[in-house]
Amino acid sequence: MPHVFLEYTSNLTDFEPDNALLRINHVLVASGQFAAEFDIKSRATRVETFRVGTGLTVRGFVHVKLALLSGRSPQVKAQLSESLLAGLQELGNWPSSVEVQLSVEVVDLDRESYRKALL
Amino acid sequence: MPHVFLEYTSNLTDFEPDNALLRINHVLVASGQFAAEFDIKSRATRVETFRVGTGLTVRGFVHVKLALLSGRSPQVKAQLSESLLAGLQELGNWPSSVEVQLSVEVVDLDRESYRKALL
Amino acid sequence: MPHVFLEYTSNLTDFEPDNALLRINHVLVASGQFAAEFDIKSRATRVETFRVGTGLTVRGFVHVKLALLSGRSPQVKAQLSESLLAGLQELGNWPSSVEVQLSVEVVDLDRESYRKALL
Repeated sequence: MPHVFLEYTSNLTDFEPDNALLRINHVLVASGQFAAEFDIKSRATRVETFRVGTGLTVRGFVHVKLALLSGRSPQVKAQLSESLLAGLQELGNWPSSVEVQLSVEVVDLDRESYRKALL
Repeated sequence: MPHVFLEYTSNLTDFEPDNALLRINHVLVASGQFAAEFDIKSRATRVETFRVGTGLTVRGFVHVKLALLSGRSPQVKAQLSESLLAGLQELGNWPSSVEVQLSVEVVDLDRESYRKALL
Repeated sequence: MPHVFLEYTSNLTDFEPDNALLRINHVLVASGQFAAEFDIKSRATRVETFRVGTGLTVRGFVHVKLALLSGRSPQVKAQLSESLLAGLQELGNWPSSVEVQLSVEVVDLDRESYRKALL
């Protein structure tokens, strides 16, 4: 932990997922909330099949889910979410022909049952 | 929000994910639970590697996760789930040679830390 | 339910996802926690775009999320998580050139709104 799950729609043709993940991980390290940088496990998925709403406008989105071991305060979670959203916004390269929505959610990992191993 | 995550196994060869997402989004708009149609962000993933149980029967599934900002009543969530399941069932085109399971779950998005931006 | 979501990074070149899912499903059946083997719906995703931490070391991970209908005790969840982690560790075939992290989380499916159908 933490785990980061980033999704971006395939019509965001200039989106650079490797770059986005590196930025996200640096934001998380800089937050001071995590003991070790190597604990941050982030992945990005290109979403090929999607539908935003029911209208005909060309739309896309980037969604980030940050999963944290339970116990952090609402304030810390909100700050992390805001930092990640700001990081996404600064990535730039958004196509002018697509209405783009960015969103970030924070979810708890159940601390009592979470298990890990380093090989 | 809301976010919809649909998965379907690759042995459901006649499943049309674009059609399914459009139907889902219309069901959600029709529920009256969401302020703007463009807030509904839905994606579909074809699952290539899967295993249902331990038996030898040919099986597949469609699973939908609906993620909503926290605060809705259990009754509203159950109604949304039932509407989505009904929508899936009506899609038809299920192969007779595959035991198909459909399932819908509703999960809360933590309202206090959820952040979004429209570019 | 239950649903299993396994992810593995693409640098784990000898990882066999079909084999992993079969083992996971057998572990779950053997736990005695589930009424019917065919209820276990498991999928594996190969993660092509990922970043572990911010360092330059070659790293990878396998992450398993087990989603269960709500109501099971913390002890049962922890036992399931430990059994799944042990099952992953025994898969072997880990590349010596990659720092591999294994993790298992257990998450509740909201029982009141979960719906399913068998076609």
